[in-house]
Amino acid sequence: MSGSRPASAVVIGAGLIGTSVALALRGQGIAVWLQDADVAAARMAAGLGAGELLPSSGVPGVPGVPGVPGGPADVAVVAVPPAAVATELAAAQRRGLARCYTDVASVKELPVRLARELGCDLRSYVPGHPLSGRERSGPAAARADLFLGRPWVICPLPENDPAAVLLVAQLATVCGAQQVRVSPAEHDHWVALVSHAPHAVAAAMAARLEHAPDGALALAGQGLRDVTRIAAGDPAMWQQILAANAGPAGEVLRAVAAELEHTAGALDQIAHREVTAQEVAGKELAELLGRGNAGVARIPGKRGGPAPEFVVVQVIIPDQPGELARLFRAAGDAGINIEDVDIEHSPGLPVGVAELWVRPEAAEQLSDVLAAEGWPVRR
Amino acid sequence: MSGSRPASAVVIGAGLIGTSVALALRGQGIAVWLQDADVAAARMAAGLGAGELLPSSGVPGVPGVPGVPGGPADVAVVAVPPAAVATELAAAQRRGLARCYTDVASVKELPVRLARELGCDLRSYVPGHPLSGRERSGPAAARADLFLGRPWVICPLPENDPAAVLLVAQLATVCGAQQVRVSPAEHDHWVALVSHAPHAVAAAMAARLEHAPDGALALAGQGLRDVTRIAAGDPAMWQQILAANAGPAGEVLRAVAAELEHTAGALDQIAHREVTAQEVAGKELAELLGRGNAGVARIPGKRGGPAPEFVVVQVIIPDQPGELARLFRAAGDAGINIEDVDIEHSPGLPVGVAELWVRPEAAEQLSDVLAAEGWPVRR
Repeated sequence: MSGSRPASAVVIGAGLIGTSVALALRGQGIAVWLQDADVAAARMAAGLGAGELLPSSGVPGVPGVPGVPGGPADVAVVAVPPAAVATELAAAQRRGLARCYTDVASVKELPVRLARELGCDLRSYVPGHPLSGRERSGPAAARADLFLGRPWVICPLPENDPAAVLLVAQLATVCGAQQVRVSPAEHDHWVALVSHAPHAVAAAMAARLEHAPDGALALAGQGLRDVTRIAAGDPAMWQQILAANAGPAGEVLRAVAAELEHTAGALDQIAHREVTAQEVAGKELAELLGRGNAGVARIPGKRGGPAPEFVVVQVIIPDQPGELARLFRAAGDAGINIEDVDIEHSPGLPVGVAELWVRPEAAEQLSDVLAAEGWPVRR
Repeated sequence: MSGSRPASAVVIGAGLIGTSVALALRGQGIAVWLQDADVAAARMAAGLGAGELLPSSGVPGVPGVPGVPGGPADVAVVAVPPAAVATELAAAQRRGLARCYTDVASVKELPVRLARELGCDLRSYVPGHPLSGRERSGPAAARADLFLGRPWVICPLPENDPAAVLLVAQLATVCGAQQVRVSPAEHDHWVALVSHAPHAVAAAMAARLEHAPDGALALAGQGLRDVTRIAAGDPAMWQQILAANAGPAGEVLRAVAAELEHTAGALDQIAHREVTAQEVAGKELAELLGRGNAGVARIPGKRGGPAPEFVVVQVIIPDQPGELARLFRAAGDAGINIEDVDIEHSPGLPVGVAELWVRPEAAEQLSDVLAAEGWPVRR
């Protein structure tokens, strides 16, 4: 094991994350062997160019039967659900599949604890978690660029061989990710706050809509869609994730519940119409909303780091082929880079509004260029 | 007052909604008079083409001094915060500004109750609420098409003159909105569920981030951004809205709080690691997530009605001028209508991924067309 990047890898679990890691490694010329209990998934991943199927040689518990043709790979990536990581890791270590091992589970304390309990070799197992993921799952949704510029958490253990840590860090780098080192416990608290609790909060809000009157749902706007969007995620997968991070996720949820209960109490005071109580309650309401503002402002923008102050230029577009092309061509011809675009449709009508996000210095020029070409434009 | 559409209107309050109503009416050739206690706002709205300033003639409480040159307008739209509607309505009725009156506040029981208490003429006041709104506010954010295809709730009162109800309904139609008739009480319960409570839920989740570790925030993804986005709204405005709908909003928030408290309890059971309790808790978790799925599925899509099953085609694009133009030109040339587009940026890297939403039958053709032009494309 040298200081250089891995030359070969085994990926165990050909789901979205495993297959994406494999594609990223293949894109860098690294040899990849694929394994999945679901052979069809492994075959699909191989068909996408993610690597070759690992021969089903290697008898578990019988040392000396090599699992990887040509000898152990530099690194094995265990890409299975959190509660299954330790078992797969133990099996892979028994087969001697690789010189070092990592996983990609979205919690870290549970797999580490189970790996200890199962007697896994902790010198060679460096826990990891690439932050990525999509609404879609399975190998067909995989993308070689899934980790580009995204954080990849690595949680070195006290027992770790430094060379193993280095190799897993290089795996993250080769996939285009930005390495973040933190303890398993801290990782789990962090993701509880920014991922697991928000999922349950979205689900709790969405659950109120299950039996809502049709009339109420007809009044829904983009705000409700955004708040609840992630609640459409796979319940089985999220049940596993929340259960695997039960302590920290529960803590955040309890705090959010208390905040909402307190807010409901303030609203009761206001509904009760007793002036002094109303004033106090109004201040409490304002305080929650202000803290919400402050919290949102701390979330890094799409490009990482604080969101640059983009300006929105709005253009009304007919909902027909070629109109967006004409719009972007006009902007491109003027050398204006459109940073982001949202299309808002007007339900039932053949027009939409394109919201074009540009740097402030480009907004006026873009407005002028588009207006000159006859677009109904507004800043 | 005939069965035909209004020929003239007064808009009181030149904020986002008032100015947008005025622009929509002007676009249909209807005469509009503008008034705002903030004269600069009224002037800005007039400058945008939303109408003419209402002369500050008309002495409050002195009948016979006409407020509108040429006699009362057909309809006056009171576009001020919920708690201020009744006062403005009373003043407008004293001045005899119009033949009928409506408002646009996002709650309906409060202004109706206050209007009764102030002794307003309820024959001519038909409460209303166009469902629209944007993150931005003020006259400069106004759009003539803000109401196109959106619901516009009208809450006829028992005292209403049928001709007034008809005229207010026509106002909604002229603005391009879809009329929905419902009682003030039901309206308030509906918007508590789909708008006011979700706002407070987003704020409560976002508030947990205010003092979160930087490291945690660096792991944030699109899910967290979506769940908390609306919590960036104006706290003063939302304090007023929540306070004005305190009863129904508090009820929904208490239910969400209870759901989250219950979920936190289930997670405690799981963290406690007692097998039977874990199984029960796991089922409870699955049940919440399943109901979340069901709730999200009930929200109508962007185009109203159940969301059509669009398919996503992904294309990797360099982050530079002209690339999106080239992409949309290729699609347009092939006669393919792109229903929606999301741009995902890869932080720190000069590429992005465009997700193109198309009807299923167009997905393969679009993939082929783009691949043929050398785009890295994936369905």
